[in-house]
Amino acid sequence: MTFRQRLSAILDRPITRHVITGVILFNAVILGLETSDAAMAAAGGLIVTLDRLCLAIFVLELGAKLIAQGGRFFRDGWNLFDFFVVGIALVPATQGLSVLRAMRILRLLRLVSVAPTLRRVVEGFVSALPGMASVFLLMALIFYIGAVMATKLFGDAFPEWFGTIPHSAYTLFQIMTLESWSMGIVRPVMEVYPHAWAFFVPFILVTTFAVVNLIVGLIVNSMQEAHAEESQAATTDYRDEVLRRLDAIDRRLAERDE
Amino acid sequence: MTFRQRLSAILDRPITRHVITGVILFNAVILGLETSDAAMAAAGGLIVTLDRLCLAIFVLELGAKLIAQGGRFFRDGWNLFDFFVVGIALVPATQGLSVLRAMRILRLLRLVSVAPTLRRVVEGFVSALPGMASVFLLMALIFYIGAVMATKLFGDAFPEWFGTIPHSAYTLFQIMTLESWSMGIVRPVMEVYPHAWAFFVPFILVTTFAVVNLIVGLIVNSMQEAHAEESQAATTDYRDEVLRRLDAIDRRLAERDE
Amino acid sequence: MTFRQRLSAILDRPITRHVITGVILFNAVILGLETSDAAMAAAGGLIVTLDRLCLAIFVLELGAKLIAQGGRFFRDGWNLFDFFVVGIALVPATQGLSVLRAMRILRLLRLVSVAPTLRRVVEGFVSALPGMASVFLLMALIFYIGAVMATKLFGDAFPEWFGTIPHSAYTLFQIMTLESWSMGIVRPVMEVYPHAWAFFVPFILVTTFAVVNLIVGLIVNSMQEAHAEESQAATTDYRDEVLRRLDAIDRRLAERDE
Amino acid sequence: MTFRQRLSAILDRPITRHVITGVILFNAVILGLETSDAAMAAAGGLIVTLDRLCLAIFVLELGAKLIAQGGRFFRDGWNLFDFFVVGIALVPATQGLSVLRAMRILRLLRLVSVAPTLRRVVEGFVSALPGMASVFLLMALIFYIGAVMATKLFGDAFPEWFGTIPHSAYTLFQIMTLESWSMGIVRPVMEVYPHAWAFFVPFILVTTFAVVNLIVGLIVNSMQEAHAEESQAATTDYRDEVLRRLDAIDRRLAERDE
Repeated sequence: MTFRQRLSAILDRPITRHVITGVILFNAVILGLETSDAAMAAAGGLIVTLDRLCLAIFVLELGAKLIAQGGRFFRDGWNLFDFFVVGIALVPATQGLSVLRAMRILRLLRLVSVAPTLRRVVEGFVSALPGMASVFLLMALIFYIGAVMATKLFGDAFPEWFGTIPHSAYTLFQIMTLESWSMGIVRPVMEVYPHAWAFFVPFILVTTFAVVNLIVGLIVNSMQEAHAEESQAATTDYRDEVLRRLDAIDRRLAERDE
Repeated sequence: MTFRQRLSAILDRPITRHVITGVILFNAVILGLETSDAAMAAAGGLIVTLDRLCLAIFVLELGAKLIAQGGRFFRDGWNLFDFFVVGIALVPATQGLSVLRAMRILRLLRLVSVAPTLRRVVEGFVSALPGMASVFLLMALIFYIGAVMATKLFGDAFPEWFGTIPHSAYTLFQIMTLESWSMGIVRPVMEVYPHAWAFFVPFILVTTFAVVNLIVGLIVNSMQEAHAEESQAATTDYRDEVLRRLDAIDRRLAERDE
Repeated sequence: MTFRQRLSAILDRPITRHVITGVILFNAVILGLETSDAAMAAAGGLIVTLDRLCLAIFVLELGAKLIAQGGRFFRDGWNLFDFFVVGIALVPATQGLSVLRAMRILRLLRLVSVAPTLRRVVEGFVSALPGMASVFLLMALIFYIGAVMATKLFGDAFPEWFGTIPHSAYTLFQIMTLESWSMGIVRPVMEVYPHAWAFFVPFILVTTFAVVNLIVGLIVNSMQEAHAEESQAATTDYRDEVLRRLDAIDRRLAERDE
Repeated sequence: MTFRQRLSAILDRPITRHVITGVILFNAVILGLETSDAAMAAAGGLIVTLDRLCLAIFVLELGAKLIAQGGRFFRDGWNLFDFFVVGIALVPATQGLSVLRAMRILRLLRLVSVAPTLRRVVEGFVSALPGMASVFLLMALIFYIGAVMATKLFGDAFPEWFGTIPHSAYTLFQIMTLESWSMGIVRPVMEVYPHAWAFFVPFILVTTFAVVNLIVGLIVNSMQEAHAEESQAATTDYRDEVLRRLDAIDRRLAERDE
């Protein structure tokens, strides 16, 4: 048994997974405490040290995995995921990039790659995405066209909402979620452009119809998969049985004819 | 017939259930009148007395059930439910705990345990929960990570919305329901942090996608159960018939061959 | 052919239905013009006269139907519907009851009873209601309990929203639709009662879950009906054929054995 | 090979489609830059020229198609679509009709007619519309009746929301989307007409129920189509096989009887 095989065996043991899960949950508490001014004032040094310890354990585990699996490591999507969410914490954030510091919390997402049930849920979500790609593409097109039109039509009068294409895209996204679309956006716009509803109401109808179709597609897909699995098992047995018996009868008759 | 058996027989009679249902409905009216200042001023004493009378009947019934069923009583979830919702009213609320007094109205939920149709609906709801557990766990993780990030990023500037992890979790729940997410929360936040949308828009997309998947899962499950019940009955009869006849033909041919 | 039979034959002719449809559509225009001050100023007398003429035609048609069908008239739900929506217009509204005058427009709903496609849609909607009855009953119970609790807990501080049970029920309905639930209602309430979320968030979760289950139930029902119709036709033919042939083979073998 | 056939062959080549797709994407960027004041100040002339060039290519392509296909050109819905969205740009917009200028961006929708995946998605959407026609008709009727009633009841007190039938229809559409329906519209109305909820709450219930039924119909339809395709293939093979074998047995027995 080589060193790499022994390492691999250790990593595959259930106890390793349980320890890592425990470290993640412990780290979650530590990272939560970091947001509390009272906790940081009382035991800031300890909290930061424990956080670094958790991080060190993750880095060690990933390093061990990297050594054990070698090149194969990067071919597994979940390994890349772990590599990324742990790696964020190692990027030096001395430049006052509070965003990077806040993103270190993403490390807790390791719970997904460690817990098989969560992993399966996320894999289910991700496997549904390719089937939705063409509707997403269509919605991106509609959003781009809508954003350009809104910018041209309402940009001068409402620069905060429709001043540039990104501003318009954000506002249109808000309108698609139906949040304050009328009282907040369209009614004020209609005070300047009374026919603005002729742009926004069709936009709402088209985008919500597209979203509904996305959901309908999801339902039909899930249903078909579930249906196929379930009914195949029971039906196939029965069908094989019928064909087998018909065969037997046929052979018996054929034999006698000879 | 022992005393416990006789008690059990009385409790199982339809008339007992009808009386209890009547008392619940009467109690509902009484508890409703208690919220009316005019009614309390006119007949406050009577209303309180009638409410206590209803409560006494519930306590008596539950006590009788407890005696009749003995230890088995606590093994039935609905009994525990009744025990809890009636028990609340007996907790002394003299300390000015208006919450406890308000919770006495939960007693009306006994209607669910008494009416078989409502019972079945609630059992259907509860039976759907375990299948949703892993998605709930995932959403809890996303909410925790989101709340810690939001607290770190926006807590200083918006203490009312993102000051602590619970504050952030509540605000993120509001955002997930799409209530005033843009005009109420994200636009004001973007005035201080112009890139805040890069946190909130993905959060909305991920959580609503998870909710949609929950609903899709519910639909597929219900459909499969309904489908299994319905089609099995009809199909099984037919399949048994085909196999029986094939058997008969086969046996007949076999007999002749002998 | 009696007078009633002849009347019935005239009413059943397609042309009669087309004329009535035309009168409804014409009446829709007239009732629309009545809301325009300009139109009323220019030709108010003509508009009112034409409206009365339309109403007279409806009354005549219903009267003819009543004579033709006699007692059977009131056994058809759609006749009762027509009787009601036309009848409203005949209630004297001299007492300044503008509500009754506004309800005369309900007369246009006759289009539903006259057009077979619309009729089928509405019948589909109505036929879905009984299956939803027990969930509605449960929601009514939850709303009543919620309204009493909210009135007791928040009624004193927020009389406009939770002053009486009807006020609370309306506010809870608004919260169930997620309209301004947080920024508009719960955040202001939490300024007085910081733990108010513990009442409202579970209320939202329970009621939206119930609504989702209603919709899931609708989908499963429609699917089963559609599935049953479609698959039965094709499958039954095939099954009958298989059983018929198996019978034939069996009989042939039996005959030879004799 | 005639000129028209040669033209048709060139247009059908994959390279032509790829070039057109590229021109559309390039045009999308150009039209996006047109909304940026900085870009227009730096290279306004170039941008406008490139936009005209793209337009010229589209006109040429459509012209070539028109020549190649002759009268058949107008029998294909997608050709009419292309003709319309390109044609808008050719309408002279010198009269300061900024709306027409903004609508030139619709030209990017050509991406849908060029990309087969997008085309299929849109065809799927369009094919779902006829099945929804009767529910749409019913909703139009409900909206018209609701708008007339709201105008009559609340028009005098709230001219901005319910002053005319179109105003009322827009406000009712907003209410149907549940946007600010209570805090924004119904609560202010109830301050003048305390019973206004008796109009709006049923309106919300009826229209959302109709929308839910639309979606349920969409799901059931998609499911049936998917189901029919999938199950037919597998089942038909098996059924044919069973009937073929039964036939063979029957024939064998029949031959022997002779």
